[in-house]
Amino acid sequence: MTTITTRLTRDFGLKHPIVLAPMGFAAGGRLAAAVSRAGGLGLIGGGYGDPAWLDEQFEAAGDARIGVGFITWALQKTPAVLGPVLARRPAAVMLSFGDPHPFADDIHRAGARLICQCQNLAHVGDALDAGADVIVAQGAEAGGHGALRGTLSLVPEVADCLAARAPGVLLLAAGGIADGRGLAAALMLGADGVLVGTRLWAADEALVKPRHHEAILHSDGDATLRTTVPDIARQLAWPAGFTARIKRNRFTDRWHGREDELRRNLEAEVPRYRQAFLEGDPEDTAVWFGEAAGIIHAIEPAGVIVERMAAEAARRLASGGGGGHV
Amino acid sequence: MTTITTRLTRDFGLKHPIVLAPMGFAAGGRLAAAVSRAGGLGLIGGGYGDPAWLDEQFEAAGDARIGVGFITWALQKTPAVLGPVLARRPAAVMLSFGDPHPFADDIHRAGARLICQCQNLAHVGDALDAGADVIVAQGAEAGGHGALRGTLSLVPEVADCLAARAPGVLLLAAGGIADGRGLAAALMLGADGVLVGTRLWAADEALVKPRHHEAILHSDGDATLRTTVPDIARQLAWPAGFTARIKRNRFTDRWHGREDELRRNLEAEVPRYRQAFLEGDPEDTAVWFGEAAGIIHAIEPAGVIVERMAAEAARRLASGGGGGHV
Repeated sequence: MTTITTRLTRDFGLKHPIVLAPMGFAAGGRLAAAVSRAGGLGLIGGGYGDPAWLDEQFEAAGDARIGVGFITWALQKTPAVLGPVLARRPAAVMLSFGDPHPFADDIHRAGARLICQCQNLAHVGDALDAGADVIVAQGAEAGGHGALRGTLSLVPEVADCLAARAPGVLLLAAGGIADGRGLAAALMLGADGVLVGTRLWAADEALVKPRHHEAILHSDGDATLRTTVPDIARQLAWPAGFTARIKRNRFTDRWHGREDELRRNLEAEVPRYRQAFLEGDPEDTAVWFGEAAGIIHAIEPAGVIVERMAAEAARRLASGGGGGHV
Repeated sequence: MTTITTRLTRDFGLKHPIVLAPMGFAAGGRLAAAVSRAGGLGLIGGGYGDPAWLDEQFEAAGDARIGVGFITWALQKTPAVLGPVLARRPAAVMLSFGDPHPFADDIHRAGARLICQCQNLAHVGDALDAGADVIVAQGAEAGGHGALRGTLSLVPEVADCLAARAPGVLLLAAGGIADGRGLAAALMLGADGVLVGTRLWAADEALVKPRHHEAILHSDGDATLRTTVPDIARQLAWPAGFTARIKRNRFTDRWHGREDELRRNLEAEVPRYRQAFLEGDPEDTAVWFGEAAGIIHAIEPAGVIVERMAAEAARRLASGGGGGHV
């Protein structure tokens, strides 16, 4: 079987140029380990930085070679979270949504690669200034937090920026990539690999409630929207410019566009949102997936997903073009 | 030199799987003819359907084999525009933004192919019901009117839909595609070709004022936004759900987010907007390009653009993957 070799697979010693998006709450140690064992790189979703949860997930990952990701602005509020994580010698630390500078030196001193997720060109500049080893160009198709640029236009523009400013820095494409077609397209756009969220959110090992998993199987790619309502309901102080892509449901129908009213109802809505999430209710809380929902039709083991994505991409690339129908 | 053969090139007798987006006002007969003569398919931007302008542009195209595109909801208001255009025997008629049913039979009877541009899965269903020969899956990266789905997630989902429902119907990708990387990526995603707007808006032959052309050369891909303000200022009754991607400038800074105030100031703003557009002012009117601005660095002849895009894509596809840096 053909395999795909890129700078990412060589530099990171991977079999496939596929990295697990460190989805907060969903990308636990089992999922990260499964992706790494299949030949990709798994990243635990450190999210807002809960030390007990992180300990648990690193334990769950066992001896798999994995990394971890954080929401940068949240890590700035609790920077002490980083030390114990670095002591576990992660292969890489990914920072998203904020200034990576304060953490770059510690990450590098621990022997980890610094991956910075970027949503626009200004973010790329900041990440390069901070000494990023890998840039993730994340398009608006992505599930969860992100911004407005589309993956297909952002990736080649960032590739040009890196070629000019920092040719040794690797590039991953993120946002809407869920099968071998997306991986092959990302490589054509100039990426060295892909960061995969939604497709691996729909993996057996993801920390996702059954009715949320069921919801993605009944959703097409038009079923999501970008909104701030889950952050309001969780009282999280996300910086302006970032929104969350989630499924349209009763929760978003009720509050999206009525954000001020939601803010006036927090006393009732905060516990209600949390309770619905804990219960795995798919209608009265956020359900976190992206536009790739439309090409996801089964919840499967992460290893199966990674292997198939790589094999499909290799086949498609070997076909040398001619369109998908030929 | 390698060339790219797809179902589109075979069925339409093209040298390259590249179709000019029928950009209203900008895609005139000279541009359409230049794209067709270079081996793609040029479509005149019929827009809101001005018969005198259409006559002029068909004349300007000379004997080149071209097609034409219309804004469907506008054509529904002035359906008589279609007859004289069909009498010119266009190779194809593209309909965007509205229900194509009322026009499909006339278009087919005139021997033209029906191309339907779609922004979501519901549009694809309508287009197939109407008997479309070609579906354009247009992502939000595109300049001008469009909607919210990203190109990279929309194209493979539409490809799956066509494979299941209408395997003989061709698929074009649109939105953010401006060089050989984008064309190669589109083919990997399952498209038979691409519809190119912004890159050909930045062609010598486009009907674009010099200072608007200059503006794209100084813009990166973050320089645009989706908004309704130019439609309000032109008093055009665009259906809900469609917005225009244009450059951020003084006009959008002033009115985007203050749409109700703009509606209260139409008496002054309508003539002011129009005058600035006619004068080619780049700040006080809409400047119509998309996110691909970030990878466009020169105004060039359309033929040069088409040939280079095809050659770059062929090279990239022949390399068989491995990422852009290898």
